[in-house]
Amino acid sequence: MPELRKDPITGRWVIIASERAKRPKSFNITRPPKQTGPCPFCHGNEGMTPPEIFAIREKDSAPNTAGWNMRVVPNKYPALRIEGGLDRRGEGMFDRMNGIGAHEVIIETPDHDKSLADLDESQVASVIKAYRDRTMDLQKDARFKYVLIFRNHGATAGASLDHPHSQIIATPVVPKRVQEELRGAKQYHEYKERCVFCDMISEEAEGNKRVVLENDEFIVIAPFASRFPFETWLLPRNHSSDFATISDESIAKCASALKDVLYRTKHVLDDPPYNFIIHTAPANEHHEEEYHWHFEIMPRLTHVAGFEWGSGFYINPTPPEEAAEYLKNNSQ
Amino acid sequence: MPELRKDPITGRWVIIASERAKRPKSFNITRPPKQTGPCPFCHGNEGMTPPEIFAIREKDSAPNTAGWNMRVVPNKYPALRIEGGLDRRGEGMFDRMNGIGAHEVIIETPDHDKSLADLDESQVASVIKAYRDRTMDLQKDARFKYVLIFRNHGATAGASLDHPHSQIIATPVVPKRVQEELRGAKQYHEYKERCVFCDMISEEAEGNKRVVLENDEFIVIAPFASRFPFETWLLPRNHSSDFATISDESIAKCASALKDVLYRTKHVLDDPPYNFIIHTAPANEHHEEEYHWHFEIMPRLTHVAGFEWGSGFYINPTPPEEAAEYLKNNSQ
Repeated sequence: MPELRKDPITGRWVIIASERAKRPKSFNITRPPKQTGPCPFCHGNEGMTPPEIFAIREKDSAPNTAGWNMRVVPNKYPALRIEGGLDRRGEGMFDRMNGIGAHEVIIETPDHDKSLADLDESQVASVIKAYRDRTMDLQKDARFKYVLIFRNHGATAGASLDHPHSQIIATPVVPKRVQEELRGAKQYHEYKERCVFCDMISEEAEGNKRVVLENDEFIVIAPFASRFPFETWLLPRNHSSDFATISDESIAKCASALKDVLYRTKHVLDDPPYNFIIHTAPANEHHEEEYHWHFEIMPRLTHVAGFEWGSGFYINPTPPEEAAEYLKNNSQ
Repeated sequence: MPELRKDPITGRWVIIASERAKRPKSFNITRPPKQTGPCPFCHGNEGMTPPEIFAIREKDSAPNTAGWNMRVVPNKYPALRIEGGLDRRGEGMFDRMNGIGAHEVIIETPDHDKSLADLDESQVASVIKAYRDRTMDLQKDARFKYVLIFRNHGATAGASLDHPHSQIIATPVVPKRVQEELRGAKQYHEYKERCVFCDMISEEAEGNKRVVLENDEFIVIAPFASRFPFETWLLPRNHSSDFATISDESIAKCASALKDVLYRTKHVLDDPPYNFIIHTAPANEHHEEEYHWHFEIMPRLTHVAGFEWGSGFYINPTPPEEAAEYLKNNSQ
């Protein structure tokens, strides 16, 4: 059973995934090995994954056989386990709980060599629908405080398989970075009685120096204090704290903007490794007025060194105004 | 002039180092290129660095010539600039200030191929003395709120030159991760009227499951909620909030423990890339009772992926008890 442990100084929770335990010589330091053997996410290899939770399939095709167009399966090597109780407990001054949670994989397409940037908008919309529907389903489990959706593209961004996929992790605690945003947004709202993200969107739309693209429902910006070169955020223009409330109509607009920014990022930066993550308000807390869900897209172009790790203070060599300019001028 | 920008949601400051500006095609994504040409940190190449700030030299050797045993120079490509005023200002809802600070390099030895783990204890002590003395000097400048000492070893840990060196950055803000520790330590102290680090040291020393090594003044532990495999912290056993107050006698003990843990880490993990950083209380604030300075040593064995970046929630595949066991049994 993986375990959650709390740092007694900062309150940061860490997953100690001892079932994935690594011995000193088993770390590949420079680059994970290239995948070999059959791809578990390709048509015909459905038996290599745990049984599917959800799929978009051809009529008459049986579950866990070929004939699907998108598939959601449990992660075969989950960071957190679905079965059991949290069993929060102390050990002297330290706090721990069982590593309870869910860890699922969204196989975005049967096409091994396509990336999310290359899929049809309708296929990207199906992926976002799966994000929403799986989030709603996982939120029903009272043990889970947060549902985190993210995507790793490229080995140096942490993707262990090339086949296009995203991941969902439901966690028994609200992640630290989300808590920081919630706290900051709350403080701003208490003082201004406005949403800080809404203010940012209107200021960026007006100044137009850091806007990458927009449609009538979504806007993509290079944020003012970007941590990473070519970092972008995709936000709904209309205030909404909870990603899981997105309508099918809005998903179509969101898919269009997401595909567009990923396509531009791919072409400007020559298919860089990247991570994206959705930040949304925790389901069981009340942040309707002050929080605003969004995607954070982070290309992995620079090595994050000791200074950044140890200080939380980032050095970004590319001003976001320049990044926005490059991305703006490289549409499909 | 580099610029500091504040994220309006979380309050996180970022250095936008536009003088190091990078164009889309100039990122080397996988690995920084191997250093070519003469090493600017070797004997005889003193003219390749800015003039030295401090050096330990043979008698009669002139500054900025060969004959030194350790050398401190300004970073040729500083992330922050020493000249000028902070000029804090708003731009609409955003906050920025000039990138004022100091960025220095400590060239730890003339020997290009040695690492800190291989140096004599007396040489390691000289390096730590330089950390202390440069910190004290930089703390005199009222513009600097924090002095950060760190070391990157290996290209994937962000070291752009192989020659053994550490870095010092003086910043006009207290870094976010240090602020988090200060806040957590303060809360603990308010409630318990004890230092959380002191409590941790005595609990670890008693339980002895995560102690890597100790001497009469210092202890090295694999922390209970380690973020990274084989992460270790080196702490003074006696309460002290401010690294810069360390005595020469304590430096000798600190050097012995630091060299020892770096040596063990090198041998157990086959010379892994790593970062270390010193966390200490900011000079101009009062944290004497609740804070406790320490080194955090972080081998870079796993790829930090989207989940960690976006959530601040780490997955560590090696329980710290196992890491401590390996390191304990691999002394010199």
